[in-house]
Amino acid sequence: MSTTDTKHETEITAGTTLPTIVVVREFDAPVDRVHRAWTDPVLFAQWLGPKSLETRIEQWDCRTGGSWRYSSIRDGEAIASFFGSFHEIRSDRIVQTFTYVGFPDGVALETIRFDALADDRTRITSTMLVDSFEGRDGLLSSGMDVGVTEGYVKLDALLGRTA
Amino acid sequence: MSTTDTKHETEITAGTTLPTIVVVREFDAPVDRVHRAWTDPVLFAQWLGPKSLETRIEQWDCRTGGSWRYSSIRDGEAIASFFGSFHEIRSDRIVQTFTYVGFPDGVALETIRFDALADDRTRITSTMLVDSFEGRDGLLSSGMDVGVTEGYVKLDALLGRTA
Repeated sequence: MSTTDTKHETEITAGTTLPTIVVVREFDAPVDRVHRAWTDPVLFAQWLGPKSLETRIEQWDCRTGGSWRYSSIRDGEAIASFFGSFHEIRSDRIVQTFTYVGFPDGVALETIRFDALADDRTRITSTMLVDSFEGRDGLLSSGMDVGVTEGYVKLDALLGRTA
Repeated sequence: MSTTDTKHETEITAGTTLPTIVVVREFDAPVDRVHRAWTDPVLFAQWLGPKSLETRIEQWDCRTGGSWRYSSIRDGEAIASFFGSFHEIRSDRIVQTFTYVGFPDGVALETIRFDALADDRTRITSTMLVDSFEGRDGLLSSGMDVGVTEGYVKLDALLGRTA
């Protein structure tokens, strides 16, 4: 599955041998600035998720061994909450866990790799390893592709503003 | 693969469709005491791993969103270190991440379930989801079965002493 927006294609692929969701996307900004948009809670809240929702950060300790929690907000009301741990933060890689509170027994392990490209551009590769194929398929059919793609368009704009 | 010790069998199974290692083991103590042996760092260090090694806890914040780090010690020297996050601690379930520092790009997600059995006994089911089949097979062939099995014999003794 892939979608095209005004700037870059967001490629979303389901693993065949592993219950993964792999997202690949390029950004017109260097690694340190793209990385900061993932680690700074003020920036993160500005771009995450679909256009129709806002993000409220409730807990954010972005270091190896830290943790996070946020909710998706519509019309001022939290409609979904998520939590996890930051397993490891490196300058070119983030490894974290992820649970949707509405499906509390599920958990995914997400690795986001930041690769430097020519001309101060960056490719991110996010690999979400879900604990079952059923859970992976449920996540894929939840509309996450819309949220991911629309969020990255917001991130394009954010990176353009803060260049 | 399974091994028999003086008290209980430790069943270690490699997943076929997922890169998992599933360990099932029963203990002659109620859930709260077995759970405490996993969450109290003083107790945990007394039973973890093979007979030939000791465990030195270097970081331990056993709560949802906390983290841990320990080393295996032989003759006073650290021969291997491990770190991870406690994604979630419940009274009947622990979900945590796990990295062996000698293979720093690898990470596993471990879920330990504590099921109450008749006569105040407990069955634990530990499911380790590794991020690749290669990594899973490497972990399995590292001698982990000896460490797991010998560690649980130490845990039997600990639970007997503190009954």
